[in-house]
Amino acid sequence: MGTDGAPFRRARRPEHKQQRYEAILAAARSQAERKGVSNVSLADIAAEVGVHKSALLRYFETREEIYLHLTAEGWQDWVDGMRDELARLPVGSVTGVAEVVARTLAARPLLCDLMTHTSLTLERNVSLEAVRNFKLAALAALADAEVLIRRVLPDLTDDDVRDLVGAVSAVAAGLWQATHPPATLVALYAEDPRLEHTRLEFTPSLQHLIEVVLTGLLHPRDGGGAPRPD
Amino acid sequence: MGTDGAPFRRARRPEHKQQRYEAILAAARSQAERKGVSNVSLADIAAEVGVHKSALLRYFETREEIYLHLTAEGWQDWVDGMRDELARLPVGSVTGVAEVVARTLAARPLLCDLMTHTSLTLERNVSLEAVRNFKLAALAALADAEVLIRRVLPDLTDDDVRDLVGAVSAVAAGLWQATHPPATLVALYAEDPRLEHTRLEFTPSLQHLIEVVLTGLLHPRDGGGAPRPD
Repeated sequence: MGTDGAPFRRARRPEHKQQRYEAILAAARSQAERKGVSNVSLADIAAEVGVHKSALLRYFETREEIYLHLTAEGWQDWVDGMRDELARLPVGSVTGVAEVVARTLAARPLLCDLMTHTSLTLERNVSLEAVRNFKLAALAALADAEVLIRRVLPDLTDDDVRDLVGAVSAVAAGLWQATHPPATLVALYAEDPRLEHTRLEFTPSLQHLIEVVLTGLLHPRDGGGAPRPD
Repeated sequence: MGTDGAPFRRARRPEHKQQRYEAILAAARSQAERKGVSNVSLADIAAEVGVHKSALLRYFETREEIYLHLTAEGWQDWVDGMRDELARLPVGSVTGVAEVVARTLAARPLLCDLMTHTSLTLERNVSLEAVRNFKLAALAALADAEVLIRRVLPDLTDDDVRDLVGAVSAVAAGLWQATHPPATLVALYAEDPRLEHTRLEFTPSLQHLIEVVLTGLLHPRDGGGAPRPD
């Protein structure tokens, strides 16, 4: 275990502990950005920090706890990133909201990757306290987003904004995986014209879906069985 | 390696090979239904078939290929399950389509679980031919669904139905994981009133989202910056 990048072997003073804590989060972030959340082990993170795995366990119980922490940070960072842009939109701008939400999320690929893993793996291998902290942080970010989006689209209810954010995060998670295909799929798309049109692009696909969902939320749903008038 | 459930050790005659092939798929299905796709190994499937792991590799390259095959089957089975019900709906019934799509998908929990894994893991550990077969089978099921849904809602384009199915599968995947929480999360929901309202139910949440998306697809999107008239 080298000390490269780690100016002390065991953090004992509070400011060293804080530095070590930040170094672990930074290493987990950069490893996941480089090779995807799925492919990062606790040992990879420890190696990048320059300490033994056991040193990490003084700060976090599992790799999932580290990534759940980064997910909570990611949600708040995303909402903070939308704040000024949403504040500049004219009231009623469905396209504006869709554009800002899609573009700011596309600029946060790690968050999109983490959205896939949240309920699939991250919430499954941590303590009750770690899940509680995550859920409360995510709810706080959601409450912020509600205020920002309802300022532009005041006809939306809080429930509408929750439905929107739920749909957006699920679709962003799915799109992120689909638009980061493995090498076999890239080769297949290049070779088989029957499949070429099934390729998706992240930002325009997400923006279109957000516009559709916002339009649906803002229109009364008759839903009846009669043909709609022309 | 016991021979329980496997009346021959190595399948040599064509009909025995077919039986072995079906037995592998059935074992993979029942293992995944019992403990979730994430938690099934090739060894688990082999144990349930009653053969050694190496015997499986004569039929499928990887566990991912087995599950990708079941995903393709699952999509076609889902569309087949919607066929008669969609055919009975009156033209224009948004609620009817949403109800049928959500209910038939809720009745197929394995497909919902597989939807999470398709681009995340299954397409990443198989040959080009296996991905091609999967993609073509999924496209055929989608083309069937387009005909069925556009009969009820003729104002939808084929692109609209693809957007719908893309959103539905992403949201169903996310909802399925979120509505099958680990024990820590169940305990947390029971204990912390601040989180109780964040619990989701699969079928009503999915049906609501489908109605919203269909409504959005069926209404012109003005998207402008001006306030909408009251």
